[in-house]
Amino acid sequence: MSTKEILLACLKEEKGTWLSGEFLGRRLTISRTAIWKHIGALKKDGYIIESSRKKGYVLRGSPDCLLENEVKEGLKTSVFGKSRIFHFSDTDSTNLQAEHLANEGAPEGTVVVAEWQTRGRGRRGRSWFSPTGEGICASFILRPQISPNEAPKLTLMASVAVAEAILACAPVNASIKWPNDVLIGGRKVAGILTEMKAEMDRVYHVVIGVGINVNTTRESLPSDIRDKATSLFIETGRFFSRAVILRTCLELLEEYNKTFKTHGFDPIMKRWKQLTKMIGTKISVDVIDTTYTGIFQDINEDGFLIMRDQEGMLRRIISGDVSPLNK
Amino acid sequence: MSTKEILLACLKEEKGTWLSGEFLGRRLTISRTAIWKHIGALKKDGYIIESSRKKGYVLRGSPDCLLENEVKEGLKTSVFGKSRIFHFSDTDSTNLQAEHLANEGAPEGTVVVAEWQTRGRGRRGRSWFSPTGEGICASFILRPQISPNEAPKLTLMASVAVAEAILACAPVNASIKWPNDVLIGGRKVAGILTEMKAEMDRVYHVVIGVGINVNTTRESLPSDIRDKATSLFIETGRFFSRAVILRTCLELLEEYNKTFKTHGFDPIMKRWKQLTKMIGTKISVDVIDTTYTGIFQDINEDGFLIMRDQEGMLRRIISGDVSPLNK
Repeated sequence: MSTKEILLACLKEEKGTWLSGEFLGRRLTISRTAIWKHIGALKKDGYIIESSRKKGYVLRGSPDCLLENEVKEGLKTSVFGKSRIFHFSDTDSTNLQAEHLANEGAPEGTVVVAEWQTRGRGRRGRSWFSPTGEGICASFILRPQISPNEAPKLTLMASVAVAEAILACAPVNASIKWPNDVLIGGRKVAGILTEMKAEMDRVYHVVIGVGINVNTTRESLPSDIRDKATSLFIETGRFFSRAVILRTCLELLEEYNKTFKTHGFDPIMKRWKQLTKMIGTKISVDVIDTTYTGIFQDINEDGFLIMRDQEGMLRRIISGDVSPLNK
Repeated sequence: MSTKEILLACLKEEKGTWLSGEFLGRRLTISRTAIWKHIGALKKDGYIIESSRKKGYVLRGSPDCLLENEVKEGLKTSVFGKSRIFHFSDTDSTNLQAEHLANEGAPEGTVVVAEWQTRGRGRRGRSWFSPTGEGICASFILRPQISPNEAPKLTLMASVAVAEAILACAPVNASIKWPNDVLIGGRKVAGILTEMKAEMDRVYHVVIGVGINVNTTRESLPSDIRDKATSLFIETGRFFSRAVILRTCLELLEEYNKTFKTHGFDPIMKRWKQLTKMIGTKISVDVIDTTYTGIFQDINEDGFLIMRDQEGMLRRIISGDVSPLNK
């Protein structure tokens, strides 16, 4: 921990209580001037700290942002978010930043978060809208020992972790749409973009990018997605701590990643099926130029969609956009 | 074409004939001093140009290196090597350079060549030895519209193109070892490392890296690979133009890439089977911690190895190191 982090820990321990500069200086074995400088830096990070010449300093509030300290506080993982959490006020895309870090050798579990993305992306080259400070934009580096054809399993794994994190943190009825969107009442609350760098038979690294609409208001959603998107705030009228949700995501990702390594995809696939509401329903799937309609029969052991078409034939769909059809 | 390139074209057209500075200056509509400067630059590139105050300039020889001009001369392609050939005297790895270019949007067919690699790599994190100027180190950018699980087909395609280029340029008996080594008399003459960046269901780009031992002498091979590696020079006692071989590779890659796009993998798989000598032979395959032995039965429609083991069971092998076994 840096001196600034130790100072913050002291202030948090005694939140609401005045601590003199002299006391803090003794505790950290640095000068009162140094304490004053670090307090300034913490204020700049968004911490609400009152100062008094006589009484010293008191922590009144923490910023609602995803600073490394805030996310790490009480984080119960040993890999995800444990080595480093890189926090950006704004960046092009957390997936791009994570990719750079992965290329430079950043270990599994490295996290990149941003308050705002200038080039937020979704699947298939689409953009991902993320208003400043209202949602979670985070990317996670994984280094699985798998071949590229197994990688789609990881994106289903991530959707299970994100859906469960949302269910654990907010009183909403979230479900998964194949392959990896998280919906509430048919509207998208979270999206996942998984990218990889690989040899033909060996994955170097996978970057899982997650976007969650947390405290986003209906007004701040662009008009063209207002009917298709939602947020935890829109659904419940309540604000949620983004740090708590991200922490829960990290804990669940770690748990499911461990499951995948030790027991394979089967238990994750089972959980995925419990979290979707699509199995047995009528759907249409856009695959490049063609639209197929039929019944969402199942997902197979590779995570591909199995659809029963109108002639009763089973069709295996590797990639496409699914829409529910009214009966 | 730049002025330097036009000047080189003039000299090549009249190779062995003296051309006056005045004549060249008129033809290029630049001053004699400018001609003199460009001649200096060409000499620096390795061109052997004689100068005489009275007679002017005469081209006596071209450098044996893979400069863009040399490779492009007479190149019969419309995609591979047509947009840009990036030439490095030395670089870390042509695959890494090609990856940077691909990330910045370089189109399909972009080529990177180097006289020497400081961090030449082979499959599965192994190193690839490449003595300066004796072999070909080249990487090609592809942008196929496929999903990642189809990518191994491209590495088999590349091995067909490289093996055919070698057969077309040198009187040797080259064959392919699964998945993509090119051998002469059981010794490796060329290796391929294919890497990609992808979403789960969509490849962004593929980089095919090719290393060919052309004029490498036995002495310049490190002792630990001297028994396993060979070169066209070692096999024939003759030197070969590396530019001609690279050009042939580019032409064949273009041809097979077109075939793959229009007719799929089937014709490439058929050609691959003609170019291997392994089908029906006894082999052992190292797959991570296990070694399997059996008969090399076939490759399937995905390019995977099908082995018949000692119990007669067929085993599908996605990735591994194959060694021939004496009967």
